[in-house]
Amino acid sequence: MSITTTNTTTTAPTELLRGTRETYAYRRVGSGIRRPLICLQHFTGTLDNWDRAVTDPLASEREVILFDSAGVGRSTGTVPTTVAGMAMHALDFLDALCLTSCDVLGFSLGGMVAQEMAAARPSIVHRMMLVGTAPRGGEDIMHLDKPSLAAPLGDPSLKGYAVLQKIFFAPTSSSQAAGAAFIERLAERAADHDRASGPDVAAAQMTAFREWERATATGVADLGRITQPTLVVNGVHDEMIPVRNSYRLSEGLPNAMLLVYPDSGHGSLFQFHDSFTRQAAAFLASDSPFAPF
Amino acid sequence: MSITTTNTTTTAPTELLRGTRETYAYRRVGSGIRRPLICLQHFTGTLDNWDRAVTDPLASEREVILFDSAGVGRSTGTVPTTVAGMAMHALDFLDALCLTSCDVLGFSLGGMVAQEMAAARPSIVHRMMLVGTAPRGGEDIMHLDKPSLAAPLGDPSLKGYAVLQKIFFAPTSSSQAAGAAFIERLAERAADHDRASGPDVAAAQMTAFREWERATATGVADLGRITQPTLVVNGVHDEMIPVRNSYRLSEGLPNAMLLVYPDSGHGSLFQFHDSFTRQAAAFLASDSPFAPF
Repeated sequence: MSITTTNTTTTAPTELLRGTRETYAYRRVGSGIRRPLICLQHFTGTLDNWDRAVTDPLASEREVILFDSAGVGRSTGTVPTTVAGMAMHALDFLDALCLTSCDVLGFSLGGMVAQEMAAARPSIVHRMMLVGTAPRGGEDIMHLDKPSLAAPLGDPSLKGYAVLQKIFFAPTSSSQAAGAAFIERLAERAADHDRASGPDVAAAQMTAFREWERATATGVADLGRITQPTLVVNGVHDEMIPVRNSYRLSEGLPNAMLLVYPDSGHGSLFQFHDSFTRQAAAFLASDSPFAPF
Repeated sequence: MSITTTNTTTTAPTELLRGTRETYAYRRVGSGIRRPLICLQHFTGTLDNWDRAVTDPLASEREVILFDSAGVGRSTGTVPTTVAGMAMHALDFLDALCLTSCDVLGFSLGGMVAQEMAAARPSIVHRMMLVGTAPRGGEDIMHLDKPSLAAPLGDPSLKGYAVLQKIFFAPTSSSQAAGAAFIERLAERAADHDRASGPDVAAAQMTAFREWERATATGVADLGRITQPTLVVNGVHDEMIPVRNSYRLSEGLPNAMLLVYPDSGHGSLFQFHDSFTRQAAAFLASDSPFAPF
């Protein structure tokens, strides 16, 4: 492991680490006595998509490690077409970091990867936060062709991060204002940008969503095997992965607390970053074997 | 108003206050600079059913006021057969206390009364906590004849508070142990007990549940008019008022945060009293016009 730094999310340099499978791009922010927090990103998101309003406060008590999975950003390799494949890369990365226990923040696609990591190697996941995500066999996961998403995604006037403001936030003026502040924060990073995800990344990740959406005979039963204390979070108006999927997670995971934010969509953690980071810090600081905090 | 006291939930004397409609029995616990918190009780519950593990910690920063509605405990009058009728008594009581603004904790039936109060007189309800409850038109509300509830309710070996342990808590050993601790705490009150609710109270309140369960054309729209910051709380395995009703509240109220506890039933606030009171205190201490805290 490299020396602990006190970089901010906006300034942390991108580092590279050789795993057994690929070389992974990552950034480290903050330090502290608590377990490191590994952050797993959303569909087509890279290291540049982490909001300092979420990751910097959490980095005041621990190292926050942002991670590009294989084929994303400057990580080598190709994007797996299953969530389980992505989880293998995350575990490979943690092994290369010599981490045997960490907390995990999985947002959207990253929350699915976190579930697979916890199932595949329970010992390495201490506490888990699953934000704007779904269990295997969930419903209406990332159907970008539905009108509420197809319209902003196909709008040529929305360039770069502007599309995120539309699709991660609710259509109310308050949520859109939070979205505007979010993309302004993302734009603060002035250099050392990640390679933006192209159609190949999107296509492989979309294939993984479709595979994840297929229910299996053991769908909910699988959740029952994930016993780590878990905090499930969503915005009540999430169009990308509707809140019903968070209800299912809360009902199926034996040790999960559910927190749902009003007036917000997929990016509830960015909209209510003060609340989210306060709740997340309290959740992660708990030494109870149970989720409630 | 009487002089502020520092009684505990276990020792607070029962007081009587004449309103314009009835004379109401109540107890006051604690003191502090924050707004008083009015606590509205569940089906057939009296002042004796408040758990000190919930109300005492909240009373460290404010006066907590436990309230018997008309026809319950030592309050005079008859139990209304509508939730709206109960809300009129609660408002009458607050007027008699000369309170023009308070926070409200409504548990189960009490959470329905709180919604009616907020709709009838928005100015008096500052922040609201709705625990184990349902919106108008909710589903499967207090159907005591269904097998999961009829069995413990009809079991002659379960006397007094023991039935609460069965029906307010999940069947897991951890939840039942929390239930056993809960009824032990209730039993600590040694004197000045309320009159237990009889079949007349139960029948009138059950009529009110059936009326509340009937959807109206404006059901969800009505929730949209309740703009107070609200914290909705439930146990994921609530058999009495299933968690789906809390989902509906969170989806319909424009300014509500939802918190769902694992491994717990109707009495999630009693089971996870440390977490609930921490969350509730943070929610009530917020000076934001928005629910997230």
